Amino acid sequence: MTWEITKHELDKQMLLVNESLFALGNGYLGVRGNFEEGYPEEIPSIRGTYLNAFYDITEIQYGEKAYGFPETGQKMLNVIDAQTIEIFLGEEKERFSLFEGEVLGFSQTLHMKRGFSERAIHWKSPSGKEIKLTFSRLVSFTQRELFAIQVKMEPVNFSGPVRVISTVNGDVQNYVDKNDPRTGSAHAKKLAVTKVAEDRGTIVLRVRTFASGLEMACAATHAVSVSCECHYEQDEQKVHAIIDFKHGEPVSLTKFAIYTDTLRHGDHIAEKAAAILKSMQGKDFSALLREQEQYLATYWQAADIEIDGDPKLQEGIRFNLYQLLQSVGKDTASNIAAKGLSGEGYEGHYFWDTEIYIFPVFLLIHPELARHLLLYRYHILDHARARAKEMGHQKGALFPWRTISGTECSPYFPAGTAQYHISADIAYSYMQYWYATQDQDFMKQYGVEILVETARLWLEVGHYREKDGKFAIEDVTGPDEYTAIVNNNYYTNVMAKYNLKSAHKFYHWLKETDDAYFAAFAARLGLTDEEAASWLKAADAMYLPYDEKRGIHKQDDSFLDKAVWDFEHTPKDHYPLLLHYHPLTIYRYQVCKQADTVLAHFLLEDEANPETIRNSYHYYEKVTTHDSSLSTCIFSIMASRLGEAEKAYHYFIETARLDLDNTHGNTKDGLHMANMGGTWLSIVYGFGGVRIKENGFFLNPTIPEQWDRYLFRLTYQNRKFQVEVARHAFKVTLLEGDALDIHIGGRTETLKPGRTVTRPISGL
Amino acid sequence: MTWEITKHELDKQMLLVNESLFALGNGYLGVRGNFEEGYPEEIPSIRGTYLNAFYDITEIQYGEKAYGFPETGQKMLNVIDAQTIEIFLGEEKERFSLFEGEVLGFSQTLHMKRGFSERAIHWKSPSGKEIKLTFSRLVSFTQRELFAIQVKMEPVNFSGPVRVISTVNGDVQNYVDKNDPRTGSAHAKKLAVTKVAEDRGTIVLRVRTFASGLEMACAATHAVSVSCECHYEQDEQKVHAIIDFKHGEPVSLTKFAIYTDTLRHGDHIAEKAAAILKSMQGKDFSALLREQEQYLATYWQAADIEIDGDPKLQEGIRFNLYQLLQSVGKDTASNIAAKGLSGEGYEGHYFWDTEIYIFPVFLLIHPELARHLLLYRYHILDHARARAKEMGHQKGALFPWRTISGTECSPYFPAGTAQYHISADIAYSYMQYWYATQDQDFMKQYGVEILVETARLWLEVGHYREKDGKFAIEDVTGPDEYTAIVNNNYYTNVMAKYNLKSAHKFYHWLKETDDAYFAAFAARLGLTDEEAASWLKAADAMYLPYDEKRGIHKQDDSFLDKAVWDFEHTPKDHYPLLLHYHPLTIYRYQVCKQADTVLAHFLLEDEANPETIRNSYHYYEKVTTHDSSLSTCIFSIMASRLGEAEKAYHYFIETARLDLDNTHGNTKDGLHMANMGGTWLSIVYGFGGVRIKENGFFLNPTIPEQWDRYLFRLTYQNRKFQVEVARHAFKVTLLEGDALDIHIGGRTETLKPGRTVTRPISGL
Repeated sequence: MTWEITKHELDKQMLLVNESLFALGNGYLGVRGNFEEGYPEEIPSIRGTYLNAFYDITEIQYGEKAYGFPETGQKMLNVIDAQTIEIFLGEEKERFSLFEGEVLGFSQTLHMKRGFSERAIHWKSPSGKEIKLTFSRLVSFTQRELFAIQVKMEPVNFSGPVRVISTVNGDVQNYVDKNDPRTGSAHAKKLAVTKVAEDRGTIVLRVRTFASGLEMACAATHAVSVSCECHYEQDEQKVHAIIDFKHGEPVSLTKFAIYTDTLRHGDHIAEKAAAILKSMQGKDFSALLREQEQYLATYWQAADIEIDGDPKLQEGIRFNLYQLLQSVGKDTASNIAAKGLSGEGYEGHYFWDTEIYIFPVFLLIHPELARHLLLYRYHILDHARARAKEMGHQKGALFPWRTISGTECSPYFPAGTAQYHISADIAYSYMQYWYATQDQDFMKQYGVEILVETARLWLEVGHYREKDGKFAIEDVTGPDEYTAIVNNNYYTNVMAKYNLKSAHKFYHWLKETDDAYFAAFAARLGLTDEEAASWLKAADAMYLPYDEKRGIHKQDDSFLDKAVWDFEHTPKDHYPLLLHYHPLTIYRYQVCKQADTVLAHFLLEDEANPETIRNSYHYYEKVTTHDSSLSTCIFSIMASRLGEAEKAYHYFIETARLDLDNTHGNTKDGLHMANMGGTWLSIVYGFGGVRIKENGFFLNPTIPEQWDRYLFRLTYQNRKFQVEVARHAFKVTLLEGDALDIHIGGRTETLKPGRTVTRPISGL
Repeated sequence: MTWEITKHELDKQMLLVNESLFALGNGYLGVRGNFEEGYPEEIPSIRGTYLNAFYDITEIQYGEKAYGFPETGQKMLNVIDAQTIEIFLGEEKERFSLFEGEVLGFSQTLHMKRGFSERAIHWKSPSGKEIKLTFSRLVSFTQRELFAIQVKMEPVNFSGPVRVISTVNGDVQNYVDKNDPRTGSAHAKKLAVTKVAEDRGTIVLRVRTFASGLEMACAATHAVSVSCECHYEQDEQKVHAIIDFKHGEPVSLTKFAIYTDTLRHGDHIAEKAAAILKSMQGKDFSALLREQEQYLATYWQAADIEIDGDPKLQEGIRFNLYQLLQSVGKDTASNIAAKGLSGEGYEGHYFWDTEIYIFPVFLLIHPELARHLLLYRYHILDHARARAKEMGHQKGALFPWRTISGTECSPYFPAGTAQYHISADIAYSYMQYWYATQDQDFMKQYGVEILVETARLWLEVGHYREKDGKFAIEDVTGPDEYTAIVNNNYYTNVMAKYNLKSAHKFYHWLKETDDAYFAAFAARLGLTDEEAASWLKAADAMYLPYDEKRGIHKQDDSFLDKAVWDFEHTPKDHYPLLLHYHPLTIYRYQVCKQADTVLAHFLLEDEANPETIRNSYHYYEKVTTHDSSLSTCIFSIMASRLGEAEKAYHYFIETARLDLDNTHGNTKDGLHMANMGGTWLSIVYGFGGVRIKENGFFLNPTIPEQWDRYLFRLTYQNRKFQVEVARHAFKVTLLEGDALDIHIGGRTETLKPGRTVTRPISGL
């Protein structure tokens, strides 16, 4: 059953990981898969509920601070907990806990087609009372504020009373793990409870952050299947609903919790939460489930990938696509955090992961969500302009390496602010959006400005080298964080080149398309034809370091001069290297954390000749550790391109089940969203050979020999089409929309409505 | 009077700076020139008493921490305060304060020949009482634990009682200035008082650090010139001696304070302090002054530089030589802090400043003190070995960039740990010591081991480049912190080359000199002839980046490819650049904080041809801001060498009075010790043309046209000689020791006992 992820046993070693895997969310609200009844103190759990982009400001500490180091960071907060439901059996009020008594049956399931998770338990208390419990929970895709839990309780061998204590708790804090620098620094308690109330069964709590001034509220209520007695107890931080069922009959209880915040709901958030709750009266859990299923039917219709012959991978790809949907922000205030809403790793920050690994997925399955991701960047453009100034530039926009609200939050600039490429990455994604949608209004309103302001940055940061007149970009860090502050990082330079060319092109496009609009725009930004010409000039003169001997692009000016890392004598447990070697030691060697030049060759394949791309792949593969979860998918895609089917498959399986199998060992801190996007890319861009370029849509499928067949669907320029690849041939079917020319292999084919084009797999 | 520094007015804007300028010390104990009577709360003062190397451990905070980042720092502590003496006039007990009433007369003088400071005041109280006060204080050069204050009080127009409250106070903390990263991070209160006692007029306090476990004690007593009534009051942190003089007659009070610590005095430090105090009974202040003068007569005999025709510079050079003597540690536990014992800047840490800027001064005026500085490094060699391991090296020693007890305390590695050159700098200073002393025992016991362990480091950090077989050193930072993490920094590479050659040479020297000793030594360190040969091989293959077009050595591989900093459009108030631009912005340009390649050409002039040295000077001069206080002295020396007399003089005056004129604006945090050493170097190495090399002593004097005559004395290979330079000729006189051949200009001359060689100034 590849539409479900199920754990059939309670594995106490995997609790934290499973909390991430069974996280639910809808892009606004996320809830980790914690146990409602809680855990004994000695059992580690990261109990978390998060609102995308709901953060507090934290102070960044430096042993030695320099000019322009960000003074404050941001942290996505663990907000009011509505998960907690404790159950007490019989007159003795024996507390239900999976860590006492005897677990006679246990399963935990994520229903990816139906949009909920379920925990089914058969438990025997220390004194011998048996009960069957089913916890079902959902975070609604159609009512973004809603989190609901249904508990079914079925006493097996006793008939005494059952007490349920269901809590809404504002006494929460973020998780702190001092041992792992990747979980973010220690800023735990960040919320003050400003309201606690209960009125006729509706519980309302409101909290306020200490520093950012953001507020959020939670309103909750309960519905029961049989009559019971209910009363409430509260203190300054929480409310307990104490619900007593008299007889030992099967009962069910549903808890509805509504989350609002001042980012999305303006003022009066507590009242608004209560009002939303009220508007839902009469809706039961099964109705909610139907809505989930309906919503997901549409999603899967566009997004699903079918793989025949490999159920584990089928499970992996669906899990990833499901979690991407659960995590992606659907308003301009939010984006998609590195760990989505499934954990606190990287403090809920947004990185380039969005543009390079996740945006391309939504672009071709759900362009409206992709558009939101781009709008978020437009929304923080003024922050990026201000940061460029702070970094000593006269104009342009330098996007923050990591942020929530738009200010730079990276405390370690060599692997943070120095990654100037993020601005080019954003420009690149705007161009991809243009190719895939031809959305002229969007480009006019947002796209050109982003292209222009990022292009300006490169003129500020680069310069024409005296020795050869080439345009050089010095002292930046590329995607590979195992070298830092380098000169002429190929990735950065070639992406900047593309950025500059794109800005030049769209400057003139706008001028030609809408004279009056252009005039106002150019005046507002102080743009001239001369400035636009300077972008093209820099692009044409861009220095792209090349090594003649190896026939590859150099990762940066000095990368190939360094000694190759001594992989042979590096113990296996010394990976990831960053946890076992000082940065300087790592910087000193040819060793890559992740695809860098190879990634550039994927994104901009027409900027290098095929032989160089092949050589680069083989060269950099040897020195890449894939310590970053952003790496193997790119190597898989490029292996596919180069016809290295075995390798493509090998890297793909490392990618597809990274979190399900916790291969990086840190899934407890949340799911690796970029990697999840990378799984899809590995199939569609990798095996499928898809490319989106100025001159159209490209397709060139192969199939791993382990598979019998696979199928994916895409949305492109208002068409929907389906690609089905079997062992020796593939079919492309236009499902919706007008006829379209696409490039298959070396040839142009016309897709016609309702018609299927069948072609043999060409090999590579 | 160039033997005294005097301020004739109370300048309230300059209080903090004057506290540094009037600091007293003896290398063990230092006391800032605070006012005994204290300040109103709104008047900023850094009240400080320091023991060299007496520190507590501080936690270093990182927003994002990586492997090998030091977890703890160290901070020289402000210890028990014995400075405080408050004075109350008349029955009304009007408190004496320079910030109330009327200051009818004020002067503050540092007596550099006599070894004390003096503050003479004529004050009128708000109610009209006039009194003349003279505070004299000294930190003894002959009894290192002793700080003494004498107060003379002479009522002018009243005859009521005078009350003196003299305090020994353990309730102290370090200064915090959050606005300036150079003052060190905020770790203030670090001492717990463990003993407070008073017994028959002897006050004893003991304190203990929170984390390092170090303890120190202070014992104090008072002597008076006329009978008085005295009683004591104490609380848990301090003791007040309350001394009442009955009549309005002139009286004097002397306070003796003895400082001991567990680093230097073992256990029972409180008892030892009291015992030292007792042993001094009967000694009055004037006897102490005589001892100071005697000690200083010897010092000045060896160290003084006379300059005729420029009293301000004469004052500057004497002040600097005096403060160096006051600051330099005279035991193996201590060294000389960046700010000596005059302030808290750089947290009392020791840097390469010692070896490159200060050691060479003592080497030629007081070789025994120079020896102590080297022994300190030997003393921390095991820490350096451990740090090399932590940085991923198999063997060798990596000395900490900044430290007190030997562990790396630099929280910002690109301008800290990455400055690997410090290990070569230390090796260089051992070689200089050898040339100047021919001390075989020293080299055998300490020198060879330092040379070997530092040489090993370069084999670990560098490698033979594939493309040309050259030995390259990547990802280090040179002396110029305005570029960081660069490849083949010329300074580092050439210093490493010298280090490697020196180690190879002394390996064989030891083998030939003492067979048995060598065998044990080689066995202990696991040394072989092959390893020693590998050092020479690497030295011979060392890559020294060179730019053919400009005819200069490149500061590093990429320095000259960058754009030159836009000095023209940089506002004057944007210097130092590090306080106004992000490091990345600075790194991206050709701009130097300080001499780097130019410094290498000074230290190892035979490694480059004269034309290259000249070109380099002129090239780098144009891009150097001298934002570091370590810069102008080197430019002065090299200007002298190149015959650029005007520039040499210009840079020299920027150097010589840096603290006296507070030209860097941060003298409040302490005096710039390295710059003070640099003043001497500018004269002796610069104008005097002195060099100490394997093949002997070199002298080639010039004279700035602003001067009529100057004279310096040197100690070299057990000789003392004097160089007296007049406008057209100079005289060299051997004052002590056997005949010696030295190189003057291009010729070898023999100095004979008691004889003077006179030569014309050759010009350059």
